[in-house]
Amino acid sequence: MKIILIGAGNLATRLAVALQAKGLVPACVFSRTEESARQLSERLGHCPYTTDIAHVPADGDLYIFAIKDSALHDLLPRIPANRGLWVHTAGSVDKEIFRPFTNRYGVLYPMQTFSKEREVDFSEIPVFIEANNQNDADLLHDLAGKLSNKVYRADSEQRKYLHLAAVFACNFTNHLYTLCDRILAEHGLPFESMLPLIHETAAKVAQMPPAQAQTGPAIRYDRNIIEKQEALLSDPLMREIYSLISRSIHKTHNPKNN
Amino acid sequence: MKIILIGAGNLATRLAVALQAKGLVPACVFSRTEESARQLSERLGHCPYTTDIAHVPADGDLYIFAIKDSALHDLLPRIPANRGLWVHTAGSVDKEIFRPFTNRYGVLYPMQTFSKEREVDFSEIPVFIEANNQNDADLLHDLAGKLSNKVYRADSEQRKYLHLAAVFACNFTNHLYTLCDRILAEHGLPFESMLPLIHETAAKVAQMPPAQAQTGPAIRYDRNIIEKQEALLSDPLMREIYSLISRSIHKTHNPKNN
Repeated sequence: MKIILIGAGNLATRLAVALQAKGLVPACVFSRTEESARQLSERLGHCPYTTDIAHVPADGDLYIFAIKDSALHDLLPRIPANRGLWVHTAGSVDKEIFRPFTNRYGVLYPMQTFSKEREVDFSEIPVFIEANNQNDADLLHDLAGKLSNKVYRADSEQRKYLHLAAVFACNFTNHLYTLCDRILAEHGLPFESMLPLIHETAAKVAQMPPAQAQTGPAIRYDRNIIEKQEALLSDPLMREIYSLISRSIHKTHNPKNN
Repeated sequence: MKIILIGAGNLATRLAVALQAKGLVPACVFSRTEESARQLSERLGHCPYTTDIAHVPADGDLYIFAIKDSALHDLLPRIPANRGLWVHTAGSVDKEIFRPFTNRYGVLYPMQTFSKEREVDFSEIPVFIEANNQNDADLLHDLAGKLSNKVYRADSEQRKYLHLAAVFACNFTNHLYTLCDRILAEHGLPFESMLPLIHETAAKVAQMPPAQAQTGPAIRYDRNIIEKQEALLSDPLMREIYSLISRSIHKTHNPKNN
């Protein structure tokens, strides 16, 4: 299978490395940034690369767009016409973005948080796929199954909600860790001391639904502690977050009182 | 060491079981609820128990109060006078709550989220201790060191902030998992598919500071996605949470623009 990889950022790199491990080295890598394209090409054993979208090979079997949503709009009209399958990797972009340009298209959405500094085991990443015809859906299912043990089908409507759910479970959660780190640092306490609690909180929900795992002052609606803790927060935005989430916890667990 | 355990809830039970594993079975368990007291006593090989605080032995070496903050206020004045060391296990209660009743007191605060349905390895739980004299601080340090590999000293002021930080990292985080679960369930998607992302998000911050681990539309301040995602949330409270945390992420990572 001749794979053309459009993009050389975090996700593109992780994907390329996972493909390479399965003997599927991309036939060409594109990035608008020479440096990024060259680095990824080197990592893949000096596979061909280009910074000119018009020079992307037209005989690819699969074109994977692992780029920012905004870049997708720019690049799609400029890809040389071809008969390959086009897929993007984004949570919140409808597969129909491809319709004006090709009649074979789909999505391969790996739901994970990628940072340059950290390796991830791609086989553990849930991958959500869809395509606009059954053959291509099967092709993507096979390919995704080589990369990951967790392949799901999800249509574009579901994928939007997956991405939204992931923002809550990952991006927002990580920001709460950031606020926690800030509180600790301001009082001479090590963030490291919080890691067992963070890990247990994450581990618990593999065993029980999160609503059942809820603990703390807000679920008891312990006004005494809630008010004391709010008063400790000098930053108005942090105080607002504290108050709003406490209210939401209370409402979730005591629907009759709200 | 003769230990008197006041309380028979989640924390009291975990603590008692951890003490028992070190050969330190409580000499007496107190709970206002007969059923709870009897159950915990049975679990500890039928150690003595009582539901009458006036019948708690007066010759204990250590009185551990593992009860709700509000119950602490009720019970302290009714404990038979004794010369033991009194400690509570609460995050947000000053050690000086004991001063009117005894001159030997302190705190042993295990920072973890306890649920009945789930066993925890006490040796991995950070335990924060303080006492009002050096001898008792050393005694608590020894005892805590038997139960956990992670013993820290923290005064009452620091402990308040530890508890506050833990509310962000655990209670609030778990609520975000709950909201994530709600979004997925409403669209026929399994919460299980989110677990690798949840675990990776927690694991990342053992390797890099959470601010550095931040990903997602809010840190890029991708207005297009932020607005689309807000529009997907029909619940006003969830929309408010989405908007507020996105704003806080943006402010944290782009302080100049705010």
